[in-house]
Amino acid sequence: MEHSDFRALFGLSAFSEEEALRIYVQRQFSRIVAHGVDYDVAQRVVGRITAFDKWAPEWAGEGGYWEAIAVKARRRGHRTTAMNAFFLASSCYRVAQHILHDDAAKMACYPKVVSLFETAGKLMSPPLERVSIRSSYGPLHAYLSVPAGRGRLPAVILAGGADGWREEYLPITLIFLERGFAVLNVDAPGQGAARLFRKTAMPVDVERFFSAAVDFLLKTPRIHPQQIFMLGHSVGGYLTLRTAAADRRLAACAALGAPFELLSIFDASPPARRINFSLLCGAREPEQGREILRQFTLEGLLNRISCPVLIIHGMKDSVVPFSHVERICSEVRSSVDLRTFEHGIHTCDNYVGEVYPLIADRFLDYAGGSRRRMTRRIANEVPA
Amino acid sequence: MEHSDFRALFGLSAFSEEEALRIYVQRQFSRIVAHGVDYDVAQRVVGRITAFDKWAPEWAGEGGYWEAIAVKARRRGHRTTAMNAFFLASSCYRVAQHILHDDAAKMACYPKVVSLFETAGKLMSPPLERVSIRSSYGPLHAYLSVPAGRGRLPAVILAGGADGWREEYLPITLIFLERGFAVLNVDAPGQGAARLFRKTAMPVDVERFFSAAVDFLLKTPRIHPQQIFMLGHSVGGYLTLRTAAADRRLAACAALGAPFELLSIFDASPPARRINFSLLCGAREPEQGREILRQFTLEGLLNRISCPVLIIHGMKDSVVPFSHVERICSEVRSSVDLRTFEHGIHTCDNYVGEVYPLIADRFLDYAGGSRRRMTRRIANEVPA
Repeated sequence: MEHSDFRALFGLSAFSEEEALRIYVQRQFSRIVAHGVDYDVAQRVVGRITAFDKWAPEWAGEGGYWEAIAVKARRRGHRTTAMNAFFLASSCYRVAQHILHDDAAKMACYPKVVSLFETAGKLMSPPLERVSIRSSYGPLHAYLSVPAGRGRLPAVILAGGADGWREEYLPITLIFLERGFAVLNVDAPGQGAARLFRKTAMPVDVERFFSAAVDFLLKTPRIHPQQIFMLGHSVGGYLTLRTAAADRRLAACAALGAPFELLSIFDASPPARRINFSLLCGAREPEQGREILRQFTLEGLLNRISCPVLIIHGMKDSVVPFSHVERICSEVRSSVDLRTFEHGIHTCDNYVGEVYPLIADRFLDYAGGSRRRMTRRIANEVPA
Repeated sequence: MEHSDFRALFGLSAFSEEEALRIYVQRQFSRIVAHGVDYDVAQRVVGRITAFDKWAPEWAGEGGYWEAIAVKARRRGHRTTAMNAFFLASSCYRVAQHILHDDAAKMACYPKVVSLFETAGKLMSPPLERVSIRSSYGPLHAYLSVPAGRGRLPAVILAGGADGWREEYLPITLIFLERGFAVLNVDAPGQGAARLFRKTAMPVDVERFFSAAVDFLLKTPRIHPQQIFMLGHSVGGYLTLRTAAADRRLAACAALGAPFELLSIFDASPPARRINFSLLCGAREPEQGREILRQFTLEGLLNRISCPVLIIHGMKDSVVPFSHVERICSEVRSSVDLRTFEHGIHTCDNYVGEVYPLIADRFLDYAGGSRRRMTRRIANEVPA
């Protein structure tokens, strides 16, 4: 299949171009707005898109518009405006490349996503720093932000899905930052910049990479070693649960729209998602991807999780059926808290204002709990 | 006319209830999102509204939902979540009452708008304080927020329109706060809480009230006396220009979607806006309102303005024609900067992410300019 036959890619061949595009926009809109594009900006850009092949150029054009505003604001010393406009420019280029599959057009767009994001990150206070996670997969870049001040902080690792990567999670990062968390935003091998620029593929035992991320946080000043959390979306939720099963240093974890295994999701998916899944695990063709994906399952792992688990699921999730969640909840032996949203779409992208504060606050409760446990432990060491 | 005949009120009698509601939602949506309701929350609520008489109860219901989340979060010590949820709850009640005209249903809703907003404001850091502006119209309440730290700050007075009041401008307030401004958010006589709870009407020479607001700021610690700015929307833009003409203490001012006079706007308006304008100036009936409004004009005033003026206008403004802006620009003798947005609706509600940073940064430039002038003046006092 040509990667330019968008109606076929999205399983919308039965519709006219216009109708297929309308459906695609409707599916993507909440995610676009949730992850950093102002409603009105998104509305204007999609209003200009009259065919699928205009998606990438129109979004990239909007990215250029905001980049120009950002550059001008920075030159005039308007730091906040420059920072926001650089982030928005990065987001527009991210939405532009989202529709493409590792071809030349995507590779032309993605460096903009990263460089504009990093430029914006430097203007944040405290800055969003580019850091390097050393692991057996080679050094992979991540973003770290640590709130200013003194005292040890809880930290959260954010893991993205098959096509949602580091730069997409800035709004989530901000929700955690304003609640006093340090945030580490990573692309695992096979994801985002780690795949496109480092040519990595996701291994079955990818939890080793996330353990390296935990190692990194434990070496980061001011991070409380007993308050490291992890949160993942979609495939990132699967990664989070794998990591929690393998690494007892997580204080708690949360997964949104997480699958139990990837094969059945792959089989039920339109070509675009099959391609994403295949690229993720290093396969050039979906047939090969399907074979590799057989191994991507939580089977036999979840009973090893010892930390509290928060599962969030939208009951209108058209990607991951609720049966996956039921299986996850039934196999985890530690404390599991399931919160469903009746009108929630995949990864509850239409509930960001409710879901992320809920997760961050829950993690803070756990952190408080571990502090209380610590206090007890210390008290026990004092002779009565 | 019954205030419950919404199609007639909005000039949509030619349409079915369903179609009229769709048009109304489309007109209001950007404003609702721009002024504090998450896109997805707004989308869900309007999705539940099947007829005009469901507007107020559905929005109030959503307000109650967020109030419950806020109260629970506050009880658990989750301050940021509580603050945001109280603000969102207030916004939902504000959108609920917006469709109503000073009747019992509105009076039942509005205290929630104010009390939830004030509760949220107390959780902000620095807090959004309720303060009292003393003037010949009696003491009227306003919101003041002064960024923490040391040093003298620029300040901005925000003025709302015929039906957009203090509590609506929180997102704008935040844009100024993060750029280091103190913000004073007022309801003039005849607007919002000042009308509904204090039974005031807007006098023709309402600039006296805003001068009292300037007096208040000059008595507020840390406000730089030569860096007081004013910004107004729609009728608030008219108020801003009146004030700038009468009070030379403004360092600069900005008006969005500002009319030159109100009579022609009144005459071209559907009944809902005629009622709003009439209530504003204390008339019980539109016929009486129309007579009073004849006096609401900038004629003969604008040549008295001595500070720089920034005019912003959306070229798709269906309330205030561009001819008003042309007349304003031609009569102001001081520096006028006009910035138009080709796709901008009334008061550029669909460009908030671009317009308010632009205004705040421009004011900062003026503040820098006045600092430079001050430096020169001080330098002159030092004998050479």
